[in-house]
Amino acid sequence: MEKVRIALLGLGNVGKGVWKILQTNKEAIIKRAGYDIEIAKILVRDINKYRNIGVPEELLTTNADDIFNDDSIKIVVEVMGGLEPAKEYILRAIRNKKNVVTANKLLIATNGDQIFSEAEENEVIVNFEASVAGGIPVIHGINESLTANKIEEVVGIINGTTNYILTKMTLEGMDFEDALKEAQEKGYAEADPTSDVESYDAAYKLAILTKLAFETKVDMNNVYREGITKINSIDIQYAKELGYVIKLLAIVKEVDGKLELRVHPTMIPSIHPLANVNDSFNAVFIKGNAVGDLMLYGRGAGELPTGSAVVGDIISVLRSSTDGAKLSTKHYTEMEVRPMAEVTAEYYLRITVKDEPGVLGEIATVLGQNKVSMSSFIQKPKKGEKGYVSIVLFTHNTSEGSINKALEKIKDLEVVNKVENIIRIENLA
Amino acid sequence: MEKVRIALLGLGNVGKGVWKILQTNKEAIIKRAGYDIEIAKILVRDINKYRNIGVPEELLTTNADDIFNDDSIKIVVEVMGGLEPAKEYILRAIRNKKNVVTANKLLIATNGDQIFSEAEENEVIVNFEASVAGGIPVIHGINESLTANKIEEVVGIINGTTNYILTKMTLEGMDFEDALKEAQEKGYAEADPTSDVESYDAAYKLAILTKLAFETKVDMNNVYREGITKINSIDIQYAKELGYVIKLLAIVKEVDGKLELRVHPTMIPSIHPLANVNDSFNAVFIKGNAVGDLMLYGRGAGELPTGSAVVGDIISVLRSSTDGAKLSTKHYTEMEVRPMAEVTAEYYLRITVKDEPGVLGEIATVLGQNKVSMSSFIQKPKKGEKGYVSIVLFTHNTSEGSINKALEKIKDLEVVNKVENIIRIENLA
Repeated sequence: MEKVRIALLGLGNVGKGVWKILQTNKEAIIKRAGYDIEIAKILVRDINKYRNIGVPEELLTTNADDIFNDDSIKIVVEVMGGLEPAKEYILRAIRNKKNVVTANKLLIATNGDQIFSEAEENEVIVNFEASVAGGIPVIHGINESLTANKIEEVVGIINGTTNYILTKMTLEGMDFEDALKEAQEKGYAEADPTSDVESYDAAYKLAILTKLAFETKVDMNNVYREGITKINSIDIQYAKELGYVIKLLAIVKEVDGKLELRVHPTMIPSIHPLANVNDSFNAVFIKGNAVGDLMLYGRGAGELPTGSAVVGDIISVLRSSTDGAKLSTKHYTEMEVRPMAEVTAEYYLRITVKDEPGVLGEIATVLGQNKVSMSSFIQKPKKGEKGYVSIVLFTHNTSEGSINKALEKIKDLEVVNKVENIIRIENLA
Repeated sequence: MEKVRIALLGLGNVGKGVWKILQTNKEAIIKRAGYDIEIAKILVRDINKYRNIGVPEELLTTNADDIFNDDSIKIVVEVMGGLEPAKEYILRAIRNKKNVVTANKLLIATNGDQIFSEAEENEVIVNFEASVAGGIPVIHGINESLTANKIEEVVGIINGTTNYILTKMTLEGMDFEDALKEAQEKGYAEADPTSDVESYDAAYKLAILTKLAFETKVDMNNVYREGITKINSIDIQYAKELGYVIKLLAIVKEVDGKLELRVHPTMIPSIHPLANVNDSFNAVFIKGNAVGDLMLYGRGAGELPTGSAVVGDIISVLRSSTDGAKLSTKHYTEMEVRPMAEVTAEYYLRITVKDEPGVLGEIATVLGQNKVSMSSFIQKPKKGEKGYVSIVLFTHNTSEGSINKALEKIKDLEVVNKVENIIRIENLA
């Protein structure tokens, strides 16, 4: 069997996963790829860190030239993450006519267009299945399987850390801090959890899905982003009482010719398939004008699931079964992104007010003046501060601009202590 | 843009879906395929049947030679179904060096190996995404995306008709006959529902999934098949009380080097993602040794979803993004199929017995003699026959052989009126 030599850039979790899979499933992979895949070099920062993990030391190098100047290496697998030097390395690989497989969401989201267009010029393949939703074949799905469709909407739970935290809060009644701590102990969340809990991670992935599904450029500044730190277990409880579950959703949809592009905590009906995606699982819901509703569900992270996507991409290169043309930025169309003020949704509002008659009337009046109408209202006892109660309002469909204007006024009402929370509702069918 | 001429064999639901999609999404498809796809000919049995459906009459022909003898036609799309003449036509297309896209589960399940090996000899592509689970890209998923994995298990709800019936029975308490009638009225079930309700349809699809996931030949005689007609709404009710849902599952898994290959109604935990796959939706759950648990969910039938898969396959041919080699029967390994008597499961038993003391003891003794142990027991009031009660037993894991032997004896017990039902339980994690 003919050998093909590849190189890994990085030997962290994903790199180790790739190594393990290529050993464990060697025979099956040879059969499917038509080649015996040999890891010829692995670029690491410090060779000492990687002794005794079962990887032969002679494969390790700290010198990138060992890889880029070696013409026998046909595929460069970037699993180091981060913007630089990953970008420099990937462009160097492309310019040296090497095919690339990458798991780097940040890089593809922010520099994908340059990378794809250089790949096209140099007639090499760049595969990036692992950059979104780990082992779930969502990139392949959109790029290779759903090609008959005009995709209308993609809604995803694409950050495992926040989904784990929200699941713990929902099913076990934990509060955010405890759930985060548990996620950190289990290795699902990093010591600095900002990228996950403030939705940066999901926003990058959403940008990639948008490029693919809508064949358009995406400026990260146009992706609306809201984290989950504001979600209180009481909101989850109230949502549940009304048949909703709170999930961090990444949403892109075309409405009247403009894109909505946003990541935020969202109430969704508890009977929707996405509502039952729990723990660190990911899922991507896709609506196509031919296929209808489709959902892909699985492990969005972890060394083996992400390694599965990376190795699958390596095999795709060897079978040349991914056509670079689909990624061509030449095919992009310009799509306008709708400003958040114009995006419409139903809203959940939780407000602490004075416990006296007429309060609801005052709030409803302000909402009405701003063309926001209420669909339901519940008064909740508020523990703690005497003389105050919590009220929960659900609105009919309204624009973000209108609700924000109304809330500015409501905050200033003498009877209102605090607008505690506002959460969008998506009545996914 | 260069044109490519294709022909349809058949213009039923799926054929119409293909026609509509190629019109509606023309621009996007041209961009992705790199060709303008022109339907040059459509083979039908009776041209008069297809007037006034928006398809130009000059495309219709009743003469297959118009297609096979036309060298300008590069892809033949078989959407007629059935064994013959579909098989003859597909082989003729292959031998005339035309690529093939088919939606024909029966043909691929029973004659796939011959078709793939002739395709390989003739260096043409045969794509068949639409043959299993309609619009859900499960064939692509296994063939193109999960190539890094050793697949350990595939468990699917791959028949929409029976899933619709079971959903109605579960969520609305309907009995089988009424649910079937409603499914027929809605066009989900055929006038003769045998193929669906007796699980022939699911068994063919399972055979195809098995070939792909385990790269082995499958003899249809080795696929154990049981229908859903025996499911009573009372079983669904009892299942629910114990946290289970009854679904018709198609299951293939490797256990100790042998394949288990079976389609039957199954109790699964109500919290498992498959338990929430309702109505006519399909879902396929795949366990790979790298990717872990993966589920693909969507529309398993209907003209547009199935058309989505067919048109996706046409585009794949044009992008040459499917490598025929993966389907090569040369790569098959021999795998033994475990006889059903050796398959193990937990069981639900519903038995009508005399309403007198000591009955449970007699039954438990027979079970014990056959090495079957009970995990729980509930006595249910039985309406109707006086002097009898219903008992429901759950067993621990045991072999099909043992349970059947025990049941033979139990049937003959003087205290037993009738063994009403026996349903396997899969405690999917």
